[in-house]
Amino acid sequence: MSNEIEIGRGKRGRRAYSFDDIAVVPSRRTRDPKVVSLGWQIDAFQFEIPVIGAPMDSVMSPATAIALGNAGGLGVLDLEGLWTRYEDPAALFEEIAGLDPEDTTSRMQEIYREPIKDELITARLQEIRAAGVVVAGALSPQRTQEHYATVVKAGVDLFVIRGTTVSAEHVSDGAEPLNLKKFIYDLDVPVIVGGASTYQAALHLMRTGAAGVLVGFGGGAAQTTRTTLGIHAPMATAVSDVAAARRDYLDESGGRYVHVIADGGLGRSGDIVKAFACGADAIMLGAALARAEEAPGAGYHWGPEAHHPVLPRGERVHVGTHGTLDELLFGPGTSADGTSNLMGALRRSMATTGYSDLKEFQRVDIVVSPYQAG
Amino acid sequence: MSNEIEIGRGKRGRRAYSFDDIAVVPSRRTRDPKVVSLGWQIDAFQFEIPVIGAPMDSVMSPATAIALGNAGGLGVLDLEGLWTRYEDPAALFEEIAGLDPEDTTSRMQEIYREPIKDELITARLQEIRAAGVVVAGALSPQRTQEHYATVVKAGVDLFVIRGTTVSAEHVSDGAEPLNLKKFIYDLDVPVIVGGASTYQAALHLMRTGAAGVLVGFGGGAAQTTRTTLGIHAPMATAVSDVAAARRDYLDESGGRYVHVIADGGLGRSGDIVKAFACGADAIMLGAALARAEEAPGAGYHWGPEAHHPVLPRGERVHVGTHGTLDELLFGPGTSADGTSNLMGALRRSMATTGYSDLKEFQRVDIVVSPYQAG
Amino acid sequence: MSNEIEIGRGKRGRRAYSFDDIAVVPSRRTRDPKVVSLGWQIDAFQFEIPVIGAPMDSVMSPATAIALGNAGGLGVLDLEGLWTRYEDPAALFEEIAGLDPEDTTSRMQEIYREPIKDELITARLQEIRAAGVVVAGALSPQRTQEHYATVVKAGVDLFVIRGTTVSAEHVSDGAEPLNLKKFIYDLDVPVIVGGASTYQAALHLMRTGAAGVLVGFGGGAAQTTRTTLGIHAPMATAVSDVAAARRDYLDESGGRYVHVIADGGLGRSGDIVKAFACGADAIMLGAALARAEEAPGAGYHWGPEAHHPVLPRGERVHVGTHGTLDELLFGPGTSADGTSNLMGALRRSMATTGYSDLKEFQRVDIVVSPYQAG
Amino acid sequence: MSNEIEIGRGKRGRRAYSFDDIAVVPSRRTRDPKVVSLGWQIDAFQFEIPVIGAPMDSVMSPATAIALGNAGGLGVLDLEGLWTRYEDPAALFEEIAGLDPEDTTSRMQEIYREPIKDELITARLQEIRAAGVVVAGALSPQRTQEHYATVVKAGVDLFVIRGTTVSAEHVSDGAEPLNLKKFIYDLDVPVIVGGASTYQAALHLMRTGAAGVLVGFGGGAAQTTRTTLGIHAPMATAVSDVAAARRDYLDESGGRYVHVIADGGLGRSGDIVKAFACGADAIMLGAALARAEEAPGAGYHWGPEAHHPVLPRGERVHVGTHGTLDELLFGPGTSADGTSNLMGALRRSMATTGYSDLKEFQRVDIVVSPYQAG
Repeated sequence: MSNEIEIGRGKRGRRAYSFDDIAVVPSRRTRDPKVVSLGWQIDAFQFEIPVIGAPMDSVMSPATAIALGNAGGLGVLDLEGLWTRYEDPAALFEEIAGLDPEDTTSRMQEIYREPIKDELITARLQEIRAAGVVVAGALSPQRTQEHYATVVKAGVDLFVIRGTTVSAEHVSDGAEPLNLKKFIYDLDVPVIVGGASTYQAALHLMRTGAAGVLVGFGGGAAQTTRTTLGIHAPMATAVSDVAAARRDYLDESGGRYVHVIADGGLGRSGDIVKAFACGADAIMLGAALARAEEAPGAGYHWGPEAHHPVLPRGERVHVGTHGTLDELLFGPGTSADGTSNLMGALRRSMATTGYSDLKEFQRVDIVVSPYQAG
Repeated sequence: MSNEIEIGRGKRGRRAYSFDDIAVVPSRRTRDPKVVSLGWQIDAFQFEIPVIGAPMDSVMSPATAIALGNAGGLGVLDLEGLWTRYEDPAALFEEIAGLDPEDTTSRMQEIYREPIKDELITARLQEIRAAGVVVAGALSPQRTQEHYATVVKAGVDLFVIRGTTVSAEHVSDGAEPLNLKKFIYDLDVPVIVGGASTYQAALHLMRTGAAGVLVGFGGGAAQTTRTTLGIHAPMATAVSDVAAARRDYLDESGGRYVHVIADGGLGRSGDIVKAFACGADAIMLGAALARAEEAPGAGYHWGPEAHHPVLPRGERVHVGTHGTLDELLFGPGTSADGTSNLMGALRRSMATTGYSDLKEFQRVDIVVSPYQAG
Repeated sequence: MSNEIEIGRGKRGRRAYSFDDIAVVPSRRTRDPKVVSLGWQIDAFQFEIPVIGAPMDSVMSPATAIALGNAGGLGVLDLEGLWTRYEDPAALFEEIAGLDPEDTTSRMQEIYREPIKDELITARLQEIRAAGVVVAGALSPQRTQEHYATVVKAGVDLFVIRGTTVSAEHVSDGAEPLNLKKFIYDLDVPVIVGGASTYQAALHLMRTGAAGVLVGFGGGAAQTTRTTLGIHAPMATAVSDVAAARRDYLDESGGRYVHVIADGGLGRSGDIVKAFACGADAIMLGAALARAEEAPGAGYHWGPEAHHPVLPRGERVHVGTHGTLDELLFGPGTSADGTSNLMGALRRSMATTGYSDLKEFQRVDIVVSPYQAG
Repeated sequence: MSNEIEIGRGKRGRRAYSFDDIAVVPSRRTRDPKVVSLGWQIDAFQFEIPVIGAPMDSVMSPATAIALGNAGGLGVLDLEGLWTRYEDPAALFEEIAGLDPEDTTSRMQEIYREPIKDELITARLQEIRAAGVVVAGALSPQRTQEHYATVVKAGVDLFVIRGTTVSAEHVSDGAEPLNLKKFIYDLDVPVIVGGASTYQAALHLMRTGAAGVLVGFGGGAAQTTRTTLGIHAPMATAVSDVAAARRDYLDESGGRYVHVIADGGLGRSGDIVKAFACGADAIMLGAALARAEEAPGAGYHWGPEAHHPVLPRGERVHVGTHGTLDELLFGPGTSADGTSNLMGALRRSMATTGYSDLKEFQRVDIVVSPYQAG
């Protein structure tokens, strides 16, 4: 392959690219932003905007999942978060936002030791359904067997299985691990699963029958994962690889189109633009939505890695509050840092480069041009 | 193409270079700076220096356009700026320079809501003509249809159409968009148009009959455009690509030489040198001239993106005041940071590398050597 | 060779990679961390974890060598350090930790002028043996002839010869230099020797009969070595090159497997993961263990270069105290910076990428993706 | 050529490397530093160390030129500096060291307006000769015709012509420019000339009959030259290119060996090592010697660009005082930052990589491994 590199005589590696390494370029045609469509459809569900709220406590509560649904996107509730461990987690959210940095990890480890309660799973999902929006909840692969029956019974439109790295073939010597293929086949509900970050891993997930594959590490703490685990899959390459798996699987399966959902590295509107340019069908947003006034994290953002009982790999990050959910998505923007009017920016970028829908925009020209330090 | 890179299995991109990535190198001959010519001619107009003042409120007022003309260059007035919205904008300039950073974007959005007045367009252009220098005014593509008749009637020698990205083929579903080819054909005045940043986009603009093409994004807020829209076209590659379009169009058209005008990334004299080295015929300067004592921005610099009503993408930037317009262009320099004696530096660089005019200097040798951080 | 680069017309060089330049990537399979083995065996000695404590005063005392042995690894005592120069060095450790930065180099030069005493070598090694762990001590190549008889007589299970750069062929015009091949052949004890950083240097060391080769510069002050001596061998390339030498020597020797031990650039758990990914069999840790509460350096770390009598090339570095030795190795971690639960991180990284033992993990996929500044 | 890069469709450039981009690597052999020779010979003159003091006021006075000669190197006096403009410049040196940064450029422009006096040229050179060391003085190409007769009459062993960029073919329309070839042919004294930074420029200088070619820009303000003039020739590539010209000219001339003298980018001992690794025969040191207690700059360093009357391109830089000239050259070092014991570091680096003289060391292996920011 053309971008294989010799690390040393005993090892080769592949050059991989992050969103920061690339940019899209205009072509010979421009369009009026008004004629650009941002619509997205997965299975029977149609969305006005290709935005999925990440199942993380700092991003999605029942209320913000409903708000995002009403705004045209899809909210996904983390069914292993505070909302299914505590009847009323409000005070805990407030406490987390106020913790001293040095106490945060250990106190969060403590708070998340409280068991998950099936009756709370049911109650939270019903609350969302009652609002009339598409209902989606997420479990980790480790807990899917334990709680999925409750989830299905409570009723979800889309089922999300999200972990740092989810594979179609998990080897364990203890309890029988989740057989994804059988699980998805048996389930009546379309499943979105990930993170995956390579062509092979994604192709195998597509073969399990998943409706969509999350590309990334299911957390957002990419830098920390690199520091602690040495694992890293730069997003531009990962999305492009998984988009190639989608195309090959489409042929192999005789026409099943599995959606590629970028999940990570999407902090600014420019990153979102690049995810679609690399082949994404939709995006899952964490930090970008944690900046909303309505976000439960109150200016802070964290993923499940931040409170892992023995190997914490993320941190509670201060992301600030940049506007209402509506302002973050649709503007008007009052700053120029790529945190507000995310959809306006995507629409304008597509218009400037001459594209009218997201599927077409996957073909936009890209340049490689790493940011310069200083 | 030799610099195509595989981003991932589903996407290829091209390595592109900024001015910071490159430098010119001496060859075996040197010259005396005194025998170097900086002259430039477009259509019937001759200039002693290849410098065009960017049509931005912080750079060009009627007075500074006249001063730049007297200095041997070409000043272009923004016909959608404060000078055509307000009878006397002096107080507003002062206010903008004094705004608190957090209020700047919204207050500027407010100030620029005032409508453009045709009688002021006429008055400003006549003021410049009365001074005996070459007269040039700029409109955005969106407003060209609305105001061009006024402009032509008032009388301009060169007509500039400048936007972030201007294409020969703009698709819209509302009002008929500007048909550039017909417009330029009908007009009696030579037209300079842009920004364009790729070979194809520039070639199509050349085919509309333009006398010159602006290379860049028509703003100067390149970093912000990258962050918010994910769009970026590193200038060294862009200028070189458009210079190749000039050469190919020269052949295709049987001899029409369309001028390539670098417009962006030209903050220091070294950048200016590199623009010509990559193939530019002339340069449009924004920030570099906003540093003049005479500049209307009073030490600040901003483009139309900074006050976009719904998607602001630039900011009012503090550039400081580094000397008179004459000192910035011709020295003597009293600092060594590349902000003064811009023409002296260009002249010396051409002499050191052995070239005697700008057209020849387009052939100078280049090295790729990215700046090191720290 | 594919990664040869022309520096200029008169010189070619090879692109080399540091651990920071690379990362490992998941594949299509994942495993349960519980089924992952971290065991390592060299000669007749088996270890539960592939960790060797670096023979540096700030890392290994007789007590911490014993503690690391009890934790499943191998402690190596520096037989030219304070413990063999002074009967009771406790006060000196305290003094070093308290020195003003500007006085450190000269005071340390003074402290280390005290001669090495053979009777203290004997006493320190016996203390370690009495604790029932594997006994290992290190000498520099310059002092090996002078002290090895004492070391062998005192009894060691593994003999370590460690210097900045150790070669199989040392040219001198004075006293006969150490003939490594003869020395190792005559010795009854398996020898680990280094640093080596290239294929050729390592291959020659393997041919001397060494049981293991240290890859690196035997110090940890890589940046200083680069600044002062202009010498640098980025670790990812160095480990991979030496791993290739292991494979070629295995064939050449008809089956002798010489262990590749990464020694340098291993400050975070992610670096440790990458060392194995590049082909290491084990790791020698300096700074990473100097952060233990039990470490003699009391939050500071230094190597022999720091007190070189005429060309000091390292410095006493403040590394802080991040937890007990046990917490650093096995967690639980209370921070997410890659300094604690080093073995847990290695285990999880292997599990996430689908490998069950260290030898297999040497085949894991790698990407090249340099860290971005800022 | 293998490292040609397409900047854009209309321009190609060559990837060039700085000393920071590269490092030397050990091979399979090591040597005792004591058996390493640093000797250098040019024409009939032998030196114990390959060090030339740069003809800059902050580095070389008559006294320091003598001191460097006594230390085994070659001091070159700037014959256009303060020592030939003023009878007693001591007070001016003191004043320059005390100037406020904002006044420095203009005050230095003023100080250097004082004319050069032939009788002072004579007096200074005689003072050096009286001390019994090799005598060398430098003029710029612009002033060579005016003053060389005085210089030759006063008596020099080596004549240095040093400018930012010196070419064998200078084009001027005014006074006849210096005909280097004729000048050198007529002169009885060996000439060292530069800066040159490319193969072609250096080859032409070699053909003029020069005994040595300076590689670099004759100033040390490389970063400023890049910012202001857009000119840059990274030193590793430049030295390697000029070394290739030396080899080709050796063949073309039937055996004339022209010395390659690196002049720039040599701030730390590691840089010096790399200059020889790229093919240099000797080094000209500016900032590195300006750090001596004896240096006339009293902790400051500047070149002629800093006081150019109309286009100042360098600055008075604070370099500090790091030890006596002897300590800087031969140690003992008391810090580890590459500023002291420059010759000890070179010697040790050669020993560690297995070389015994400088000519051999030009063949040492190199890796390309850019410094990482942060």
